[in-house]
Amino acid sequence: MNITSFNPPVRTLMGPGPSDVHPRVTGAMARPCIGHLDPAFVGMMDEVKTMLQYAFQTKNQLTIPVSAPGSAGMEATFQNLLEHGDKAIVCQNGVFGGRMKEVVERCGAIAVMVEDDWGKPVDPQKVEEAFKANPDAKLLAFVHAETSTGARSDAQTLSKIAHDNDALVLIDAVTSLGGSELKVDEWEIDAIYSGSQKCLSCTPGISPVSFSQRAIDVITSRKTKVQSWFLDTNLVMGYWGPNAKRAYHHTAPVNSLYALHESLVMLQDEGLENSWARHTNNHLALRAGIEAMGLSFIVDEEYRLPQLNSVTIPDGIDEAAVRSILLNEFNLEIGAGLGALAGKVWRIGLMGHSSRAENILLCLGALDVVLTDMGAGINSGAALPAAQATMK
Amino acid sequence: MNITSFNPPVRTLMGPGPSDVHPRVTGAMARPCIGHLDPAFVGMMDEVKTMLQYAFQTKNQLTIPVSAPGSAGMEATFQNLLEHGDKAIVCQNGVFGGRMKEVVERCGAIAVMVEDDWGKPVDPQKVEEAFKANPDAKLLAFVHAETSTGARSDAQTLSKIAHDNDALVLIDAVTSLGGSELKVDEWEIDAIYSGSQKCLSCTPGISPVSFSQRAIDVITSRKTKVQSWFLDTNLVMGYWGPNAKRAYHHTAPVNSLYALHESLVMLQDEGLENSWARHTNNHLALRAGIEAMGLSFIVDEEYRLPQLNSVTIPDGIDEAAVRSILLNEFNLEIGAGLGALAGKVWRIGLMGHSSRAENILLCLGALDVVLTDMGAGINSGAALPAAQATMK
Repeated sequence: MNITSFNPPVRTLMGPGPSDVHPRVTGAMARPCIGHLDPAFVGMMDEVKTMLQYAFQTKNQLTIPVSAPGSAGMEATFQNLLEHGDKAIVCQNGVFGGRMKEVVERCGAIAVMVEDDWGKPVDPQKVEEAFKANPDAKLLAFVHAETSTGARSDAQTLSKIAHDNDALVLIDAVTSLGGSELKVDEWEIDAIYSGSQKCLSCTPGISPVSFSQRAIDVITSRKTKVQSWFLDTNLVMGYWGPNAKRAYHHTAPVNSLYALHESLVMLQDEGLENSWARHTNNHLALRAGIEAMGLSFIVDEEYRLPQLNSVTIPDGIDEAAVRSILLNEFNLEIGAGLGALAGKVWRIGLMGHSSRAENILLCLGALDVVLTDMGAGINSGAALPAAQATMK
Repeated sequence: MNITSFNPPVRTLMGPGPSDVHPRVTGAMARPCIGHLDPAFVGMMDEVKTMLQYAFQTKNQLTIPVSAPGSAGMEATFQNLLEHGDKAIVCQNGVFGGRMKEVVERCGAIAVMVEDDWGKPVDPQKVEEAFKANPDAKLLAFVHAETSTGARSDAQTLSKIAHDNDALVLIDAVTSLGGSELKVDEWEIDAIYSGSQKCLSCTPGISPVSFSQRAIDVITSRKTKVQSWFLDTNLVMGYWGPNAKRAYHHTAPVNSLYALHESLVMLQDEGLENSWARHTNNHLALRAGIEAMGLSFIVDEEYRLPQLNSVTIPDGIDEAAVRSILLNEFNLEIGAGLGALAGKVWRIGLMGHSSRAENILLCLGALDVVLTDMGAGINSGAALPAAQATMK
């Protein structure tokens, strides 16, 4: 065995995440490790909480980064709120609603599914009906921004339906946080989880979560213990919570939190609304180029996410071969379709630091030359001028 | 809100972990992020697995890093192996055996406790008796190297007792991996978890685990699903497993795995046995100085861990004040006692990159001046020459 240091290629990341990480963020990650109970670290934790409150637009005291990827954040929210035998209404319009179902059932709870087509938003009417049929449902769960399709659901309307039915609202904001309008307090979201590696443009591995007071009341009055010790909010609060003694629970991922801190400073400096606007504007430029090329989007404009673009594949084209050429010749990563959309779309991410004019030109230009070379029948040469016109 | 970049102080980390991280490791962490399904990343994953097999001294195919801290690694091993109603014999001789009990019970399983005094190893005789009283126990769990006390238990002997009773063996090697003799295959360990931030000297946040074929057979023939989707080895194997398609499960913490890779390259280059010997030799130097000063160790020499030294506090001395002075004046972190040993010991870590001659001199010298200044009645000036004599 003679393994040497790993030097990754330098890619442009325009898939469904991780997105491009700004050198300021990787630079922060490389700072010297200190103890997770060091007073200096504890001070940084407070700043991370404050900046996460800003990003989520909430005053929730329990707004913290879970020390693991978004999937663990998903489990943290469900496992803390659900007990055996509880009923949850779970909306599925893509991969991640299906994962929610898995997680609910592994909590020993019952998942009542509300199904919508992939690429469509969650239908509030169906959710109303599900509550009528299940007035005992404890919570409503849905994905705000479906990473597998690029569709945005109306979180505020869905939240109101849940509260009208005395249920909690739990949402997946992995792909929306920092990239699209998201207002936890105004929309009265009770539990929310996200990921560090999408529109926050941090490295993957951390999941910001937030719980409302209503959710905390449910957690602190549970009859049974949370099934995960690691994710038990009652315990985590001793380290991260308001007025906590910062008592040892688990060893925090120190350097990953440096990175999250730096990415949140960058978001603060840009301004949240400015970040949302940048994601929208860059989507419009990409859209102009994609449509000029003759390709189209599978999600209707009304609920299309600017940061995750599911784009059709020209007939007869081997989509995996295209991605492979983009990666090998141009160091450009775009995403494959997932689940029901595998082989049917490319997913082009314009998230966080990836949402930049130069990335749009690279992506459109590379797609143009590769598809033209493959004889895909696109309008060669039309994409870049169209995109540029939109940028002006 | 006007939060600026976080620049941590530069500390010397001689607590119970995280330990000092070599600049090669933080440097690796700062390399450009790439996709978790990128062919280049997949190649690096294979190298990480190979080097973890070396560190664990195992041929186990399922030897992988869990994408979360050691506490999650603990849950990954228990949750995959235990089902509702199963019985586990859990040994407790410090904090972490108690955490194991929590985790077992949250799996809906029964924990039969074998108790030993804090600072003592697990008593094999008591384990024999526990199996006699509980012949239906499915597994035996214990901590190989108790981070809360610094005591090493005899993993090989305990493992044989479990197998003689047709039970699986699950061990916590958070503090032993890389620092003390540990031979997963020779000792026939079925499930083991560790942490990145102790003797591997990587940043915190990753938990290497390994499962034997016997354990995998148990996992793949479960009657019920693993209660955590995130930690379900049946699913994780699709991404990390042998002959896996590297299918998406969760987004791997890319940059943290760069760091782990680099720390494992450094371990490979040093040689595992050389690393064990370095930890032993540096412990002997620290011991000479501590004893020359007039302080002592709470763990008997026979089963004392070289990498985690629980040292007595002079009568009448405010131990927290000492730690505070060490941190503020010398940027030196040593650990407090935990649980039953809170206020009774300091825990001085000599783990991984922290286990160096210069750190020993700093720690002894700083303790000497601070305790002398406080009138603690130590043999001032005796520690450094004693340590230096041992190093020669």
